[in-house]
Amino acid sequence: MQQTFTTTALATILGGLCISSAIAQSSLPDPAATDPQKLGWMQGFPPAPDKLVQFANGSSYQFPRTRWSFSHSRELGPTANVWHGAGHAAVLPQALQSLDDLRFKDGKNTEIRWADMLANTYTDSVLAMHKGKVIYEKYFGISKPYLPHIAMSVTKSFVGTLAAMLAAEGKINPADPVTKYIPELKDSAYADATVRQVMDMTIGVQYSENYADPKAEIWDYARAGGLLPTAPGYSGPKNFYDFLTKLKKEGEHDQAFAYKTVNAEVLAWIVRRASGQSLSDLMSERLWQKLGTENDAYFAVDSLGTEQGGGGLNLTLRDMARFGEMMRNGGQFNGQQIIPQEVVADIRKGGDPAKFAQAGYKTLPGYSYRNMWWVGHNAHQTFEARGIHGQRIYIDPVAEMVIVKFSSHPVAANGASDPVTYRAFQALANHLMK
Amino acid sequence: MQQTFTTTALATILGGLCISSAIAQSSLPDPAATDPQKLGWMQGFPPAPDKLVQFANGSSYQFPRTRWSFSHSRELGPTANVWHGAGHAAVLPQALQSLDDLRFKDGKNTEIRWADMLANTYTDSVLAMHKGKVIYEKYFGISKPYLPHIAMSVTKSFVGTLAAMLAAEGKINPADPVTKYIPELKDSAYADATVRQVMDMTIGVQYSENYADPKAEIWDYARAGGLLPTAPGYSGPKNFYDFLTKLKKEGEHDQAFAYKTVNAEVLAWIVRRASGQSLSDLMSERLWQKLGTENDAYFAVDSLGTEQGGGGLNLTLRDMARFGEMMRNGGQFNGQQIIPQEVVADIRKGGDPAKFAQAGYKTLPGYSYRNMWWVGHNAHQTFEARGIHGQRIYIDPVAEMVIVKFSSHPVAANGASDPVTYRAFQALANHLMK
Repeated sequence: MQQTFTTTALATILGGLCISSAIAQSSLPDPAATDPQKLGWMQGFPPAPDKLVQFANGSSYQFPRTRWSFSHSRELGPTANVWHGAGHAAVLPQALQSLDDLRFKDGKNTEIRWADMLANTYTDSVLAMHKGKVIYEKYFGISKPYLPHIAMSVTKSFVGTLAAMLAAEGKINPADPVTKYIPELKDSAYADATVRQVMDMTIGVQYSENYADPKAEIWDYARAGGLLPTAPGYSGPKNFYDFLTKLKKEGEHDQAFAYKTVNAEVLAWIVRRASGQSLSDLMSERLWQKLGTENDAYFAVDSLGTEQGGGGLNLTLRDMARFGEMMRNGGQFNGQQIIPQEVVADIRKGGDPAKFAQAGYKTLPGYSYRNMWWVGHNAHQTFEARGIHGQRIYIDPVAEMVIVKFSSHPVAANGASDPVTYRAFQALANHLMK
Repeated sequence: MQQTFTTTALATILGGLCISSAIAQSSLPDPAATDPQKLGWMQGFPPAPDKLVQFANGSSYQFPRTRWSFSHSRELGPTANVWHGAGHAAVLPQALQSLDDLRFKDGKNTEIRWADMLANTYTDSVLAMHKGKVIYEKYFGISKPYLPHIAMSVTKSFVGTLAAMLAAEGKINPADPVTKYIPELKDSAYADATVRQVMDMTIGVQYSENYADPKAEIWDYARAGGLLPTAPGYSGPKNFYDFLTKLKKEGEHDQAFAYKTVNAEVLAWIVRRASGQSLSDLMSERLWQKLGTENDAYFAVDSLGTEQGGGGLNLTLRDMARFGEMMRNGGQFNGQQIIPQEVVADIRKGGDPAKFAQAGYKTLPGYSYRNMWWVGHNAHQTFEARGIHGQRIYIDPVAEMVIVKFSSHPVAANGASDPVTYRAFQALANHLMK
């Protein structure tokens, strides 16, 4: 299957990550044929050579091996644990519905079933909640309820939430210069930036997130953090901090939203300095232990043990649902106020849609970005955490609905699946509000 | 402190592991001065250069950094998770006693306090149970109840127990040749060995576990499994299986006990083939989910994702206590028969003390080795799991006592601490039987 995929030139394997510029949904590989269970990755002792998924040769970031590796980050590199706590898991009440036949129009005005939408977007697992009850929960391929999946940039929303919590406590002042917390950034692009600009990603920094460009700095970042293997004799930065301090300014701050993962790493650094805790310890103490999570989460870490705040969080679907449900409920869950209501309100308020519009996201009209969350500014007041290859926390306060979804879409950019997933989520919201 | 330690030539840092041939307890570094909390390993964002503990430069296996790294294996390399299950943790009832002032005679007939014994053996954490209740539980340095610690060769006893369970089910026949399960070993030392010989470590194989010899195969094994960094251009075996298939015979099988970690790796391979499961999945299903553990355990894995069955298990102290208590109770714990009583009986029966005696362990008179457990054949019918640098499950059925202990002793071989720990454990047993 991989060969078919490669030879049809649907996507380019670049620096290990599957990328594509403009891919038509119809020309993607048959999702059923990429089922990791059927393909037998890492089965046997040892697995057959053509069934191996390894970090060192870059194969762990190649589709369709990603359909296995996105649920096995821990086996591929060093990680830091986010302890689930000593208490009992918070029960997620169930009121299951059969949604597979829910029908809606996709981006091309063709009727599509909910179940087909899941398959076509390479869904690994999905859970929907309505009014606090689980109405739908499915695991595909090698996914399991207890197996953490990589959240990619959904990670950023956790970092942004922790930062906003520290801001509410006065431990971070968003109006302060970044260098108040991280003097090491005084000669970098962040020398004259504020924490707020970092939180809302309006930083002018020479750093490209364009997965289609082999020279984009996203690859240098990944190599520095140990997320991709390096060639023999590699002499670049060997950890996240080292990479961040060398970033140069490009343009001006505060002019436009520009989605750049390094901002999340800078914010994670600020969060650590302001709290005096590692990201994993802070997240355990402030969120994971209080949410009544079932399982530990974990972060990929670099050679210094620094968590990848831009995309390295791995967690189970149900625990992500608990977090999403807590956000929907203004910070309340498991019988307690876990984060202040004003923190959730500040996120939902959103950033500046005019600044956001300059980034040109066709699938996100009228959106803004605030505290590392994506805010819809629509009738349903939706707000979201989004990660490449189809990771999602979608919160619809009006429909009292939360959808969490893990995927291993061959295309990194969510623009490839947004046209169908948004329509599906809106259709479900409308169905539930009937 | 490290400098002092190195320059006093108390031990040699070799291939990353702290070793020593004949060290007098009195000449070891002051344990209090090696407290990892005080030394501040990995504190700060980033930590100061001289406070770093890293895998790539070998520092994570250098004492006194080991006092930190033994509780942070996960942050230093890839791992496979042993899921704790969805149920509630089994309560460990408490009846705490103040044992710190318990006095006994050490190996030199000097009176010593229990608390001093703990400090002098570089204890990271210790828990004692009597008649099913926790009577003593302490965490030192950076240890915490929820933080897994590396178990070193205590791992082998888990592998041996799982193998004995499969044998009881008829999935493994110990009388069978190893090659029935692992044909790949047909040209190795194991070509004419039986599974029983592997389980009891009476294999004639050219492999030295002598930590004092820089050319000992233990170092080649560690490099093959990714447990130690390799030099640029390294061309040796790149995973455990590759290393095992190349081992050559030396002497005859079944003549004498010879403690060689590779036998545990071979047994782990047999266990995977016979069960069709990874070691981590099997251990989760058969032990961790049933014991009512509080936390996930995890294994260090090689580049193929293969667990280090010889020493790579990391687990929390309390969960190790649950396992030990289950063994003391003939396989019963948490309201169920977790492993068959005959499996425990077979372990307690022990191996052949005459074969064991040939290995010349001065601190283990009259002992034998069976199913990867150390059996005392003494009046208290003690049996134990033992790991280098002071890892221990000590079960005394007569005193109805279980002691679990994690340590980061600068000397690998437990002969360095046995004279005092055995006397301490026996003194506690006598105290409890009064």
